[in-house]
Amino acid sequence: MNIQGKSTTGRENSMRKGREVEHECVIQEQQRANGIGCDEKAVPTPHPPGSEGDTGITMTAKSRRAIYCYGEKQVGPEVGKEIKNRTDMFRHLQISPTGESEWAWAEQAETGGLMAGEVQARLQRSCLATAASPLKVCIVGSGNWGSAVAKIIGNNVKKLEKFASVVKMWVFEETVNGRKLTDIINNDHENVKYLPGHKLPENAFIHGICDEISGKVPKGALGISLIKGIDEGPEGLKLISDIIREKVGIDISVLMGANAANEVAAGKFCETTIGCKVMENGLLFKELLQTPNFRITVVDDADTVELCGALKNIVAVGAGFCDGLRCGDNTKAAVIRLGLMEMIAFTRIFCKGQVSTATFLESCGVADLITTCYGGRNRKVAEAFAGAGRTIEELEREMLNGQKLQGPQTSVEVYRILKQKELLDKFPLFTAVYQICYEGRPVQEMLPCLQSHPEHI
Amino acid sequence: MNIQGKSTTGRENSMRKGREVEHECVIQEQQRANGIGCDEKAVPTPHPPGSEGDTGITMTAKSRRAIYCYGEKQVGPEVGKEIKNRTDMFRHLQISPTGESEWAWAEQAETGGLMAGEVQARLQRSCLATAASPLKVCIVGSGNWGSAVAKIIGNNVKKLEKFASVVKMWVFEETVNGRKLTDIINNDHENVKYLPGHKLPENAFIHGICDEISGKVPKGALGISLIKGIDEGPEGLKLISDIIREKVGIDISVLMGANAANEVAAGKFCETTIGCKVMENGLLFKELLQTPNFRITVVDDADTVELCGALKNIVAVGAGFCDGLRCGDNTKAAVIRLGLMEMIAFTRIFCKGQVSTATFLESCGVADLITTCYGGRNRKVAEAFAGAGRTIEELEREMLNGQKLQGPQTSVEVYRILKQKELLDKFPLFTAVYQICYEGRPVQEMLPCLQSHPEHI
Repeated sequence: MNIQGKSTTGRENSMRKGREVEHECVIQEQQRANGIGCDEKAVPTPHPPGSEGDTGITMTAKSRRAIYCYGEKQVGPEVGKEIKNRTDMFRHLQISPTGESEWAWAEQAETGGLMAGEVQARLQRSCLATAASPLKVCIVGSGNWGSAVAKIIGNNVKKLEKFASVVKMWVFEETVNGRKLTDIINNDHENVKYLPGHKLPENAFIHGICDEISGKVPKGALGISLIKGIDEGPEGLKLISDIIREKVGIDISVLMGANAANEVAAGKFCETTIGCKVMENGLLFKELLQTPNFRITVVDDADTVELCGALKNIVAVGAGFCDGLRCGDNTKAAVIRLGLMEMIAFTRIFCKGQVSTATFLESCGVADLITTCYGGRNRKVAEAFAGAGRTIEELEREMLNGQKLQGPQTSVEVYRILKQKELLDKFPLFTAVYQICYEGRPVQEMLPCLQSHPEHI
Repeated sequence: MNIQGKSTTGRENSMRKGREVEHECVIQEQQRANGIGCDEKAVPTPHPPGSEGDTGITMTAKSRRAIYCYGEKQVGPEVGKEIKNRTDMFRHLQISPTGESEWAWAEQAETGGLMAGEVQARLQRSCLATAASPLKVCIVGSGNWGSAVAKIIGNNVKKLEKFASVVKMWVFEETVNGRKLTDIINNDHENVKYLPGHKLPENAFIHGICDEISGKVPKGALGISLIKGIDEGPEGLKLISDIIREKVGIDISVLMGANAANEVAAGKFCETTIGCKVMENGLLFKELLQTPNFRITVVDDADTVELCGALKNIVAVGAGFCDGLRCGDNTKAAVIRLGLMEMIAFTRIFCKGQVSTATFLESCGVADLITTCYGGRNRKVAEAFAGAGRTIEELEREMLNGQKLQGPQTSVEVYRILKQKELLDKFPLFTAVYQICYEGRPVQEMLPCLQSHPEHI
């Protein structure tokens, strides 16, 4: 049985081992929509970081934004169309409206849900063992990226004894044409709800949901964050995975790469990178997530992987300025490369752990950077900025329905750190992007700034 | 005086030191057009490597192809227009038709010319000293790339006491509208001659010219090759710099990067990489060639730099197949990244000396790869191949006036080495490109080939 549609090769079937239990995906209604930090009235920080992360999340502490971000993505309605029009999206999911019969998770969900990739530690101590009790997986978030990953996981757990065949997805409940979103997904096997224009700061969300589930997650559970973005911290920047790790107290890996959700949902060939602190956990997630067309490399400098997902957006703003200034291919390639070098240099300053240059050659590094600098919305808005003489905020209102761009906001956090450490002159591109976006520096000055780049001295 | 047009900053003027001697460029007529290996009747090898290098050359043992390649470049007539229309191109050059008064080189030119960056060893033993006798520079080749670099060098020598203010350019003589090309350049200060459609195998040329000048070049002379391409060797692949090094007996550096000639000529900001065997020689060339908008990094693994310039074209063919198959951004980014990983792995196998991963993060690596995979003609023809059902040879005739594409040809040489070493399974992309281009393997099989890439195992 070809379970991935036309893009799946026959090879996949030969990989099928163990039980032929029909995969089930239990969509769990979130009972208290406004009680887990998703309140629209949450006070945004001055520069809410990652407030519109470009891929949505799954599998760890996130739900609402992924739903809400649809339509605000640069790829726009196509993302949703791809997922909505593919009727095989949820075809293989046997949806149950509650799931209590299978999982203790259902009770916990009522108080906030669990982390994705979670292991019920009392049942399964060793994460890598293929013991009698299979590992249970929960996906938190059901937006475009969450749905794309749900499809992958839903297919994979059918083939791997190690994982429970029921995968739960935590959906932020909405009413769509008078019906509950969970009912629609359960009955129609399609996720039809993608709302544009919501402006929920992700950091408010991530703090809230972590507070909610803190203390309720088993100690041996494992999480993986697919959120591209950063938060504010005392040193000007804080990783999303660190927030989850500190608040929930479990091991967190991250997954980042050149992974536009619509293409992943369509089963097109791509790569991604898992960054982990504990290699065996990273390899477990690789087992859960890899398919013939979603290829995974695991590296053990998780912070580097996560920083790539945030810093690339600053570079994309620089690339967009290039496009707006009609600089040509040589110049754009130079800006992208110098941006990559600043990403590496910044990561070395910021990270306490190891930073391997090779990690920047993974999908999370150079590949994601390329797609973001050629196709992303940071690039697009920055191009408009260079040509239009309007402010970033005006363009966000016009082009993104008021949503905040990641690149400029990340540049704020990065600038703060660099200034504090008196390192601005070592990062001319990052500095120029910030100053052009927020301090009125003419966009034409970006290239002269790069003429004395430390890379060439 | 702003000597680089509007894109030059005032900073340049402040860098001016020493004599204000007006720069002269002596265009030396090549007396024996058909006597230095440029004969149209030269027997081409079965797969003449680098027969249409995408940048032309300068400054080391090359002239004819650089002239002839204009119009055959993917960027096509724009290259020439950019150079022809910029009347400041040769504005600062005081042209002398012979130059004998200044240089002994003129006599030597009659027997074949000298290597670019040449040092008259009898006058100047230490290359880095700023002694009384300045270093003399010769540019071999006057095509688009040669002309672009001539402009840079012409301006730079005015500012640097270390170099002689007269820079000679060796032009392959042509008749244009009844006038000699050298006369036109000397009188009109423009290089108006770019001929499309010539099919001279570069390796025949490079062997010929090296044979001609062998024994006539002073021992202490230094050369730098700007030729992107490879030759055949007993092990299936030979670097152009190695041919020059062996035949001429001087130290050769290389210069490679994301450097479309028209944009360099227009003074747009870009980067490049010099690879050298002797660091002080690389730094000398950096001094000669760097400008505020042509930024140079020097690394000491020259072979890696040169291989990047050849191998990227194979990757670009893969990227073109992706475009033809309408694979999407994720897939294309994955193909480019996997290609980069194969470039690194192949270089480690091929090179006897050091191979630094960091070199692939230089302009010669990731930056040149990006521009080639998004804008180059290898990509373009491969895209057409994937859609059209015609052979590479047919498309070369239709789209390139019969000229050979670098990517497929390089894949032949690389395939030969990999097969001999029984390493084909470690290089699925390189292998697939070869087999699709020459063995009738369906282009649709490229992506399945990548599903079991060693990178993901």
